[in-house]
Amino acid sequence: MLKLILCGCNGKMGQVITQVVDENNNFEIVAGIDTWLGIDNKYPVYEDINKFSGEADAIIDFSNPASLPSLLKYSTEKKVPLVIASTGYSNEEIESIKEASKNVPILYSGNMSLGINILINLVKKAASALEGFDIEIIEKHHNKKIDAPSGTAYMIANAINEELNNSKNFTFGREGNDSKRQPDEIGIHAVRGGTIVGEHSVIFAGLDEIVEIKHTAMSKRIFAVGSVNAAKFIADKSPGLYSMDDLFNEN
Amino acid sequence: MLKLILCGCNGKMGQVITQVVDENNNFEIVAGIDTWLGIDNKYPVYEDINKFSGEADAIIDFSNPASLPSLLKYSTEKKVPLVIASTGYSNEEIESIKEASKNVPILYSGNMSLGINILINLVKKAASALEGFDIEIIEKHHNKKIDAPSGTAYMIANAINEELNNSKNFTFGREGNDSKRQPDEIGIHAVRGGTIVGEHSVIFAGLDEIVEIKHTAMSKRIFAVGSVNAAKFIADKSPGLYSMDDLFNEN
Amino acid sequence: MLKLILCGCNGKMGQVITQVVDENNNFEIVAGIDTWLGIDNKYPVYEDINKFSGEADAIIDFSNPASLPSLLKYSTEKKVPLVIASTGYSNEEIESIKEASKNVPILYSGNMSLGINILINLVKKAASALEGFDIEIIEKHHNKKIDAPSGTAYMIANAINEELNNSKNFTFGREGNDSKRQPDEIGIHAVRGGTIVGEHSVIFAGLDEIVEIKHTAMSKRIFAVGSVNAAKFIADKSPGLYSMDDLFNEN
Amino acid sequence: MLKLILCGCNGKMGQVITQVVDENNNFEIVAGIDTWLGIDNKYPVYEDINKFSGEADAIIDFSNPASLPSLLKYSTEKKVPLVIASTGYSNEEIESIKEASKNVPILYSGNMSLGINILINLVKKAASALEGFDIEIIEKHHNKKIDAPSGTAYMIANAINEELNNSKNFTFGREGNDSKRQPDEIGIHAVRGGTIVGEHSVIFAGLDEIVEIKHTAMSKRIFAVGSVNAAKFIADKSPGLYSMDDLFNEN
Repeated sequence: MLKLILCGCNGKMGQVITQVVDENNNFEIVAGIDTWLGIDNKYPVYEDINKFSGEADAIIDFSNPASLPSLLKYSTEKKVPLVIASTGYSNEEIESIKEASKNVPILYSGNMSLGINILINLVKKAASALEGFDIEIIEKHHNKKIDAPSGTAYMIANAINEELNNSKNFTFGREGNDSKRQPDEIGIHAVRGGTIVGEHSVIFAGLDEIVEIKHTAMSKRIFAVGSVNAAKFIADKSPGLYSMDDLFNEN
Repeated sequence: MLKLILCGCNGKMGQVITQVVDENNNFEIVAGIDTWLGIDNKYPVYEDINKFSGEADAIIDFSNPASLPSLLKYSTEKKVPLVIASTGYSNEEIESIKEASKNVPILYSGNMSLGINILINLVKKAASALEGFDIEIIEKHHNKKIDAPSGTAYMIANAINEELNNSKNFTFGREGNDSKRQPDEIGIHAVRGGTIVGEHSVIFAGLDEIVEIKHTAMSKRIFAVGSVNAAKFIADKSPGLYSMDDLFNEN
Repeated sequence: MLKLILCGCNGKMGQVITQVVDENNNFEIVAGIDTWLGIDNKYPVYEDINKFSGEADAIIDFSNPASLPSLLKYSTEKKVPLVIASTGYSNEEIESIKEASKNVPILYSGNMSLGINILINLVKKAASALEGFDIEIIEKHHNKKIDAPSGTAYMIANAINEELNNSKNFTFGREGNDSKRQPDEIGIHAVRGGTIVGEHSVIFAGLDEIVEIKHTAMSKRIFAVGSVNAAKFIADKSPGLYSMDDLFNEN
Repeated sequence: MLKLILCGCNGKMGQVITQVVDENNNFEIVAGIDTWLGIDNKYPVYEDINKFSGEADAIIDFSNPASLPSLLKYSTEKKVPLVIASTGYSNEEIESIKEASKNVPILYSGNMSLGINILINLVKKAASALEGFDIEIIEKHHNKKIDAPSGTAYMIANAINEELNNSKNFTFGREGNDSKRQPDEIGIHAVRGGTIVGEHSVIFAGLDEIVEIKHTAMSKRIFAVGSVNAAKFIADKSPGLYSMDDLFNEN
C-alpha cells in the first residue's frame, strides 16, 4: 500500500484524488496539507507539511505556487518523491524545482492526463510533417475558469514551437479590418461556457485539407488517476526531473 | 430568360456567378460592371453602370461600398430591382439603401446562402429557449481573409443580441490571469488557416449540456446560387427592402 | 416541499435523482421503489409501490416497462401525478399510458433534458426548411449501452419523419460495393466507446453546404434535474398526457 | 518537364489532374488513356495504352482494376515508372502489382493526399499508446458514392489492426436491443450526404477522456497534387514497391 501525502487536499482536485484513492486498495492518504481546513477528511490535515511526522512514499501536490518552498524543503530533506501538478510557476520557481530534483525524484507536468500527453506527442509529429500548414488551437473550459488560455493550451503551443525551432508567435484573438493571419502565427482561442470540463483541439489547415487532433476531458477523475499513477511511478525512482512522458513510455 | 447586370463581375465571386449563370438556361448576364477590366468575359463589361444602355431585369452587386451611389442611382432611375451582396457598409450607406428601396425593390443580405439564413433563424430560437446558457461563436476562414470576425459572424451575433434585448457584449479574444467570462458576453473567435471556405458554429453551453448549431460552406457556389435565386425572386416584386428570409419563407 | 415517490431508485439514474433531490430544499423523496434492495437510502424503499401507504405529490419513474401496470394502477387510484422517463415501451403499453392519462396527469418523455427537447424543435424546423438536404444522425454513447441506436436518436428521427410526412426510411449502417444512399434515407449511426455520457448530432447535407445541430450531455444530472422539474410542473395539472415541450413552453 | 501518361483521364479525378498539370510548368501530359472518349482534351487520348508510341517519364493511374494487366505489361516492358491510385483490387491483383514492382518502380496507395497519410501515421501511434481505449471510425462522403465504407476508412482500420496484432474486428452498424459493443470491435460508420468531398475521423474513447484525429478533404485537388508529386518522386527510383510514406519521409 503506497502511503501518500496530498498537498491541496481540500481544493476541488484534492477531493477528487481523495475519492479515487478511497476506491483503490493500493494507495492510502496518510496526511493532507491545506491552508483551508473547512473539510472533514478521513485523514489528518495539516496547514504546514513540516508538522507531519509520519512516513510517506510520495507526495502529490495540487495546490499552488505559494506552497512550493516548504514542499521542496520537506521533499529533499526527508527524501520523499514528489509529483507536482500545480501550475502557474515563475521561471525562478521552475529553476528551484530543477535544483531540488538533483536530490530527490520529482515528476512535474502541467496536465496529468494520459490523453493530453499523447495528444502533445501526436501534435509534435504532425507539426513537423505538415510543413507550411497553418496551426490554430481552440480550447474550451467552464465559465468559472479565471485564466485564459489554459495552461494546457500553452503546453501544447510551446511543444509545437519547440518542434519548429521557435519560429512561431502566439495570437489570442483577431478583430478588425486589418487582421490578416501571418504565416508564423499560432492562433490560440479560449472558449468559455457552462460546465465544460476541458477540450483542446489543434487544427493544421493546408491547401484544401485539414488535419485536426482533439482531446476531450469528461471529468476531473482523469487528472486524479494520472497523478496517483505518477506517484506510484516515481516512488522508487532515482533523483531526477521526470515528466508524464517518462511514465507512459515505461509502459 | 432573366437578364442580369453583374456588378463586381471580375472579382472572385463575380466569376463564380458568371459560371453558375453560364450553366443555367434561365438566366443571362447582359452586362458586367467592374473597375478592373483584366478578364475577358462573354458579356460586355463597363467601368460605370450608367454607360450600359440595354435592358435588364435585375442587378446583382458583389462589388464594394464605393460603387453604391451609382448603383442606387441607376437602379431607382431605371426601375431595375437590385440584389446587394456586398458588405462593409456604414450606417449612412445603409440608410441610403433603405431610402432607395422606397422606389425600387432591393434585397440586401450579408450572406446569400440558404444554410446561413436558416442557421440564423435556428440560433435565434435557441437563444431565447436556452435561457442562462453561455453563447460563443467560432468561425473559420482561409488565411487570406483580411477582416475578423467575418461579416457573417457579426450577422449571427447581432441577430442573437436583438433576440435577447441587446443584453450582450461581444468579446474577441481572452488572454491573461484575470479573464473570467462575464454572463453577458458573447465570445467570437476567428480561426484562420489554409483554404477553409467558411464555417460558423454557435455554442450554447449550460449546466452539463451543450447545444451547438454549425454551418459549413464547401464552396463559393452556394453564395452565387443564392444571389441568382434572389435576383429571380426580386425581379417582379414591389418596391421595398427585402432579405433572404423573405425568399426562403415564400417557398 | 414536494413529496416524491422515486420508482427505480436503486438504478444509476435513481441514485443521481436521489442526490439532486438531496441538494434541493424544495423536494423530498418519501418512498423509493425498486426490485433490487441492495442500496441503503435515507428514505424507505419498497419492492411494490402499493405497499407504500403515505402521501405523495408526484411519482418519477426511471425503472423499466415491467413496472408500468402497478405504477399506472397506483397513480390513477390514488390520483398521484406521474412522470414516466423509462423507455422501451411497446405500442400496447403506450396505449395504456394514454388511457390512464384520462384520469391523472402523466408526463411521458424519452429524454428529460432541456437541451434535447430544444434540439428536437430546432431539427424539425431545419428539416422542413432545408428541402432536399440529406439527413443523417450520429449518436455516441458509452461502451456499456445495450441498445442501439439510442431511444433519443429514435425520438429525433421520428420527429423529423413526422415533419416530412413520413417520407423517410431509417438506415443503420452501410457496407458493401452497392451501398449508394437513397434520397429517402435517414442514416442513423451508433458510435460506442469509453464512458461517453451521450451525444446526438443531426447533419443536413446539401449542395456545397452543411447544417449540423448537436447536443452533448456531460452528466446524467441533466436528466435528473429535468425529471424533478417535470414532477413540479405536473403536480398541479389536470389529467392529460404531457410532454417536456409543455414544460418548456410554459416558461 | 516531366512527361506523364494519365490513365483514366476522362474520369472526374483524371480531369482534376489535367487541370493541375495545366497550371504547373514542370509537368506535361503526353497521352491520356480512357475507354470513354467523350471529352476533348489538349493531349491525345487512346483506348489502349499500348497504342501510344511516344516517350514518357511516369504513368499516373486513376482508372479501375480492369486496366491493370495492360498497364503493368506496358510499364514493365517500357520501363516507365507507375503511380497506381485506383482502388478496389483483389488479392491476386495486388500480387501482380508486387510482382511487376521487381522490374519497375511502382508507387501504390489508396489515398494520395499528404494529410491522410500523416493521419494514418498518427493513428497508429495513438492506437498503441492508448491501450484499452475503444476505437471507432466515422467517415463522411457525398451521396453519389457507391461503396461503403470508403477505401480510405479501410486503409485506416487495417493500419490500426496491424499495429494491434490483428486483434480487432470491424463492425459496420449497430441496431437492436442486444447491440453491446465488444472490446475487440472497431466500429466503422459511413455517413453519406450532399456533396461532402471526404472526411475521416478516428475516435479513441477511454475512461472519461477521448482523443480524436480527423482529416477533412475540401477538394479533389489534394489527390491530384499528391499523385503528380508521386510521379515526380518515382520517376528516377530503382525498381520496387513504394508508398506515399516513402515520399513524405524523403522530404
